Amino acid sequence: MEVKEITNRDVDFAKWYTDVCKKADLVDYSTVKGSMIIRPLGYAIWESMQSVLDKMFKETGHENVQMPMFIPESLLNVEKEHVEGFAPEAAWVTYGGSEKLEERMCVRPTSEVLFCDHYKKIIKTYRDLPKLYNQWCTIVRWEKTTRPFLRSREILWQEGHTMHRTAEEATEETLRMFNVYKTFQEDYLAIPVITGKKTEKEKFAGAEATYTLEAMMYDGYALQNGTSHYFGNHFAEAFGIRFTDADNTLKTPYQTSWGVSTRMIGAIIMVHGDDRGLVLPPKIAPFKVMIIPIGDVADKLEILKEELNKEEISFKVDDSNKTPGFKFAEAEVKGYPIRIELGKRDLEEDKVTLVRRDTLEKITVPFNEVPKKITELLEVIQKDMYEKAKARRNSMIYTASNYDELKEIAATKPGFIKINWCGDVACENKIKDDTTLKSRCLIEDEQVDGPCVVCGKKAVTKLYIGKQY
Amino acid sequence: MEVKEITNRDVDFAKWYTDVCKKADLVDYSTVKGSMIIRPLGYAIWESMQSVLDKMFKETGHENVQMPMFIPESLLNVEKEHVEGFAPEAAWVTYGGSEKLEERMCVRPTSEVLFCDHYKKIIKTYRDLPKLYNQWCTIVRWEKTTRPFLRSREILWQEGHTMHRTAEEATEETLRMFNVYKTFQEDYLAIPVITGKKTEKEKFAGAEATYTLEAMMYDGYALQNGTSHYFGNHFAEAFGIRFTDADNTLKTPYQTSWGVSTRMIGAIIMVHGDDRGLVLPPKIAPFKVMIIPIGDVADKLEILKEELNKEEISFKVDDSNKTPGFKFAEAEVKGYPIRIELGKRDLEEDKVTLVRRDTLEKITVPFNEVPKKITELLEVIQKDMYEKAKARRNSMIYTASNYDELKEIAATKPGFIKINWCGDVACENKIKDDTTLKSRCLIEDEQVDGPCVVCGKKAVTKLYIGKQY
Repeated sequence: MEVKEITNRDVDFAKWYTDVCKKADLVDYSTVKGSMIIRPLGYAIWESMQSVLDKMFKETGHENVQMPMFIPESLLNVEKEHVEGFAPEAAWVTYGGSEKLEERMCVRPTSEVLFCDHYKKIIKTYRDLPKLYNQWCTIVRWEKTTRPFLRSREILWQEGHTMHRTAEEATEETLRMFNVYKTFQEDYLAIPVITGKKTEKEKFAGAEATYTLEAMMYDGYALQNGTSHYFGNHFAEAFGIRFTDADNTLKTPYQTSWGVSTRMIGAIIMVHGDDRGLVLPPKIAPFKVMIIPIGDVADKLEILKEELNKEEISFKVDDSNKTPGFKFAEAEVKGYPIRIELGKRDLEEDKVTLVRRDTLEKITVPFNEVPKKITELLEVIQKDMYEKAKARRNSMIYTASNYDELKEIAATKPGFIKINWCGDVACENKIKDDTTLKSRCLIEDEQVDGPCVVCGKKAVTKLYIGKQY
Repeated sequence: MEVKEITNRDVDFAKWYTDVCKKADLVDYSTVKGSMIIRPLGYAIWESMQSVLDKMFKETGHENVQMPMFIPESLLNVEKEHVEGFAPEAAWVTYGGSEKLEERMCVRPTSEVLFCDHYKKIIKTYRDLPKLYNQWCTIVRWEKTTRPFLRSREILWQEGHTMHRTAEEATEETLRMFNVYKTFQEDYLAIPVITGKKTEKEKFAGAEATYTLEAMMYDGYALQNGTSHYFGNHFAEAFGIRFTDADNTLKTPYQTSWGVSTRMIGAIIMVHGDDRGLVLPPKIAPFKVMIIPIGDVADKLEILKEELNKEEISFKVDDSNKTPGFKFAEAEVKGYPIRIELGKRDLEEDKVTLVRRDTLEKITVPFNEVPKKITELLEVIQKDMYEKAKARRNSMIYTASNYDELKEIAATKPGFIKINWCGDVACENKIKDDTTLKSRCLIEDEQVDGPCVVCGKKAVTKLYIGKQY
């Protein structure tokens, strides 16, 4: 493996992306069309994400469960908008062994109907509420195209599904988990996100409101990096879920769902990666450090390993018989936040060279200060990666005050565009037809300051638009 | 929920089992035929198992990956014995959305062929070996009957799949992981297991040797609680996997696979449970303690919670407005190893009552000694549960020296029977036809001491037989 095998990201970003996925050993293609193999480094990043998120979910009172993976067709059909959204891309099981099924079942594309079916049985009175469940699982959507982590038939994700006594409580929950995702992505993934409500056209099939986290990739495209939905009681009514409230009347509970997936690994690659490969934010890197011994340094290596263990700094050692140059390149392509060059000559002067992956800066420190310096550096790297991503993102947000400007920016400048909008789906559709840009989310904290950029009528909101993955 | 709702386990063990599964909120039945819902307590036990096992796997050098969940029919067909074993119970996906698939795919019943397909691409030289991969996932087998954790269409499990340079290394790995399972089940689940090789008839489809862990349930039935397989290079040859060895010749690698599943939760229930419900071994209980406040004891409760947190003893508090009696019963049915009765009157005398779930023994201790006493008790309970299970298991192991004796024991005494066996499958089949008992495993550490109990010919091994779940 050589660094030069990775395509330059400014020349062909799509090819650069698949190169990094492959060369960093994150994924492999499979003879199973439409499905990916997640290799050890890719899966370890997912485990690292899971462990942080799972803790955050439990701290906010959620419990994990496991629902069936199959949905009989009649169950999927209970909520009309929902089935229209998901049936066209469902994988249908029609045979069990050699027997044709009386009713075909799809592999879950999402589990709202399965949770509702269960909630109907276990929610009787207000004392049973709220129900705060989450599930880690694989879902299936029969996509036509495959891009590692971004679009594939099988997606590893988590899906929270909660039921509440009142609309207010359910709305609070929707926003609480939306904020958990924002904290996670900004503080752990070092990815700045634009957050807001989806338009009616872009919201989840069956939801009353969808809140989205929109991250901007290096190429200016948007990646929808997680969503939190408020359902009102649509599903609960369709499923006939009722509880006896404290006042002894029968009521219908209010529902939310929220999810993030391995797509976040794609976001890490496309926000932080560079021409040498992956760059992992320290807080999510499965191993913070790669140690590369150069020459016979066995004694010092043992001491260093002990010191790092003591400080709970996770590391790997590349003691293969490849050349140091090859090992440096490999540590870079795999995105270890710091590599330690433990060289015989350096050690004779009691020195060790640390190399930051994000900046490639070399830092020379005395041997016995290595663990302390690494602890400091990891924090600095985490912070710097976030600031760098944010600065780039902000430099690619534009404002269009009329339709010509919008088309001009869309054609020449990758990124997000802020516009005034009348709220009419016809204008949203026209933008998409003319420019391929789609609505990202409503902007809640900015005042409308002009007419709708498309039709010229009175605007009701500001809106981010952008190309998307 | 009342204790009396649980069927007496000596009256109807099967009904007792499903009662415990339901009343302890471990599972719920689903309208999805053949599938189960794993509820929060059931899933938390599985998470607890996963976290211990995953650590043991990683300490023995294994990495987690994620393979596709679908297997195209042609890929399943590559290894002949394997497809014969699994095709009859495969769930077949035939449509993606509204389009009929050119080739149908089954949902993985196990993933040997998927791993081989990947290994063929990534194993080139002896330097790429061993490959030590594991996967946590759900598999599907189209079973006709459903019993929570024991038999259902969807099974949560882990499957290790490894490739090695030599047959010796692969055999070592097979036994290494077999021993990891044994340690886990005995030390953490407090379940004594009988371990050994399966007969030719009972081994895994496509394996050269299958090693099994056989646990005996309260009713004397066997539960196959995990297996480790040595494949030789059957699959590798069928898939054309070759590597260049150090001597520059092309060789075929040797393979293993090994798995345990949520079935182990069924084993915990059926080995340790009693007429009041679930009894969880402390080391695997998601929460070690249930605190039941009686009267106004808010101040002392806060102090106790702090003390338990300091000692990292996980607990729950039942501060609902149910009666103490109801709460005791609920803590019992859910199997918390210890419950703390924090009563106002006891506290006036500086006393607290601890109740062991395994023996129901009440222990009175001074308030400030509670955390220390609990730490001690948890160790004692873990040990006692194992010893109790082992004593009961041992009391239900019999020896039959001729066929009449075998039939007599099989008809009257639940448990395992040791026999001398000639190794002929005809004798194995005859036993099954006459008594429904099946081979559990070969007994390696005992000498043959008589002729085959079935045919009277020379015996080559001793064998455990028993009824099975």
